[in-house]
Amino acid sequence: MVYLTRKEHFCASHRLFNPKFSDERNLEIYGKCAYPNGHGHNYELEVTLVGDPEKDTGMIMDLKKLAELIDAEILAKVDHKHLNFDVDFLKGVIPTAENIAMVFWNIICPKIAAGRLYSIKVYETPNNFAEYRG
Amino acid sequence: MVYLTRKEHFCASHRLFNPKFSDERNLEIYGKCAYPNGHGHNYELEVTLVGDPEKDTGMIMDLKKLAELIDAEILAKVDHKHLNFDVDFLKGVIPTAENIAMVFWNIICPKIAAGRLYSIKVYETPNNFAEYRG
Amino acid sequence: MVYLTRKEHFCASHRLFNPKFSDERNLEIYGKCAYPNGHGHNYELEVTLVGDPEKDTGMIMDLKKLAELIDAEILAKVDHKHLNFDVDFLKGVIPTAENIAMVFWNIICPKIAAGRLYSIKVYETPNNFAEYRG
Amino acid sequence: MVYLTRKEHFCASHRLFNPKFSDERNLEIYGKCAYPNGHGHNYELEVTLVGDPEKDTGMIMDLKKLAELIDAEILAKVDHKHLNFDVDFLKGVIPTAENIAMVFWNIICPKIAAGRLYSIKVYETPNNFAEYRG
Amino acid sequence: MVYLTRKEHFCASHRLFNPKFSDERNLEIYGKCAYPNGHGHNYELEVTLVGDPEKDTGMIMDLKKLAELIDAEILAKVDHKHLNFDVDFLKGVIPTAENIAMVFWNIICPKIAAGRLYSIKVYETPNNFAEYRG
Amino acid sequence: MVYLTRKEHFCASHRLFNPKFSDERNLEIYGKCAYPNGHGHNYELEVTLVGDPEKDTGMIMDLKKLAELIDAEILAKVDHKHLNFDVDFLKGVIPTAENIAMVFWNIICPKIAAGRLYSIKVYETPNNFAEYRG
Repeated sequence: MVYLTRKEHFCASHRLFNPKFSDERNLEIYGKCAYPNGHGHNYELEVTLVGDPEKDTGMIMDLKKLAELIDAEILAKVDHKHLNFDVDFLKGVIPTAENIAMVFWNIICPKIAAGRLYSIKVYETPNNFAEYRG
Repeated sequence: MVYLTRKEHFCASHRLFNPKFSDERNLEIYGKCAYPNGHGHNYELEVTLVGDPEKDTGMIMDLKKLAELIDAEILAKVDHKHLNFDVDFLKGVIPTAENIAMVFWNIICPKIAAGRLYSIKVYETPNNFAEYRG
Repeated sequence: MVYLTRKEHFCASHRLFNPKFSDERNLEIYGKCAYPNGHGHNYELEVTLVGDPEKDTGMIMDLKKLAELIDAEILAKVDHKHLNFDVDFLKGVIPTAENIAMVFWNIICPKIAAGRLYSIKVYETPNNFAEYRG
Repeated sequence: MVYLTRKEHFCASHRLFNPKFSDERNLEIYGKCAYPNGHGHNYELEVTLVGDPEKDTGMIMDLKKLAELIDAEILAKVDHKHLNFDVDFLKGVIPTAENIAMVFWNIICPKIAAGRLYSIKVYETPNNFAEYRG
Repeated sequence: MVYLTRKEHFCASHRLFNPKFSDERNLEIYGKCAYPNGHGHNYELEVTLVGDPEKDTGMIMDLKKLAELIDAEILAKVDHKHLNFDVDFLKGVIPTAENIAMVFWNIICPKIAAGRLYSIKVYETPNNFAEYRG
Repeated sequence: MVYLTRKEHFCASHRLFNPKFSDERNLEIYGKCAYPNGHGHNYELEVTLVGDPEKDTGMIMDLKKLAELIDAEILAKVDHKHLNFDVDFLKGVIPTAENIAMVFWNIICPKIAAGRLYSIKVYETPNNFAEYRG
């Protein structure tokens, strides 16, 4: 089995905030990530498939096709957007890296025809990142 | 003459938008950077001094002190903030990398006691960056 | 299950040297890493937890709290230190990346209250690194 | 068990092309990677061992020895070469990252005397990479 | 004056070889860069403009437009190509980083309408790069 | 004129400490960089030449030869060493990045036969670096 990864990038705003909590409680939980006007990141997204390379092509999946899939399903909807307000599939989701990785998994997973999805890794910064393996 | 650089990081939201223009014109000029709810970046900031190292210390300026200065004057005010709404010294400034670099210069320059400020470099992303040399 | 990582950095000296061996044998085993006055690295440390994000917060653990824990338990004791001489919990340990990762695991593991520790990864350089998963 | 990694680099040309297919079909499958004169990459190669560090040395394997092994068995044969034409052990192999990782595994695996080979990871670019775990 | 940079990437093959010299002399001058079947790189290209940001937009030039210009004039012609054989504007040019930077300058310079071109920087690898400032 | 750069790496220990000052004063000036047993870094060194590429070769200087020069004159003497104790040409020099850059300049400058030395840049960490231009 081979693990094949495509890394993509997007820029977005978010705010960590649970409306069930008071403002004070939100600040306590999320610190400066709860500031009212939000902040943003250059997110990095790694999508990893696992499978056996097809004999005739030497590929699990054409990475260009995988890039197009990620672009159509994810990047077109999150790049240069505000994750709390602008993204249908994140409505009602607190946009932590953990949650974003799980939501992206659910979008990408059923679209993978060759091999299967192994991991979604979301970097908020080079120092903070979350990975979901289903 | 030696050039001494301290690199710092901050996360912030911004929106490129000039209220003098119509929404259509803004979209034309700024593309997806003009989307109404903004987006964000992991900004990188390089502050470069130039000078002669002091004989007894071998330093132009203590980089820890330079880091504290950048932190107090800049990072404390922009990190995890929305550059269009939350930052006094960016009020009325369209927060392009070019403008941010010039505004940061004006803040940092008069505070440099050892050597003199040579350059302020602002990375929006690893691929897009602006440098101001006064 | 989600894997959540915080990356930190520290600068330290070390020397690879086993006092049980002769100087010649040490040089044979460790090469220039055995030079008598030691050398140093910009170490990178990745601490990865695994768990289910808490429903109400969307987080396995607050990364800021994890950063504070790593800082208090590890960085405050190793940053800008000599790993062979200055660090209580490395006394008698040959400070290879492998050993450092295992020692850090033993320190961090019992302090993780949310989720559980999955991996400690120590980079000596971008090209040489060790990971311990317990 | 500890995972120990050595990262190396090489520059090479390749062309993705299966002679069983027509030129049109090759272009369809491989896109611009099938252009007749080939293209190239700064490949990165991560070789990861897993094992218990030896008590007396604190090492699974001397990373310098691992580097020498990778250099003799792999880098000396692929660096600054054309992977389709110049490399004995890639003859008849379509040089996708997936296939290269598997071929490198078969070369390195029997030479590992301390610990055992855990993973071969081949980066074509920072955004496209494949990993084989045997 | 502000310096504004856009970084782009392309993958290409090249061979360093002067047909005026014997094969032996070429090997002497270029080492493994003269191997007959060529090799390749993940090139990085930094294009830097200098100018005053336009008052109304805060930009020297729209970086998206600059990216499109670089793409149309350079990347479309060199990406996934062999620099010795496939590129009109490199015909007869020995494709060292120095020469590539100068050729790219001549292509990009007359197309810059806002500000003026300040520098073309070409990275063959992260460790080898050339910059031309006209 | 073209600027040509070779980047190299070395690992070393150092301690910032001026014996003319008391221990207290040293701690005041250098902070944790003055800790008695020293610490270390993965230094990066960029050597930049400026000149006109030779017509027949397309090169200012063979980067492999420049790499060999840097290796023989600098790296062989500082890599895996303690900069305060082990390096002849740093005897009596407080090993700040500023001072190291100036000392390296004096060593490399007279050895450059093609073009001339333009800059020596020394990175202590990715965030702290000094450049000397003669």
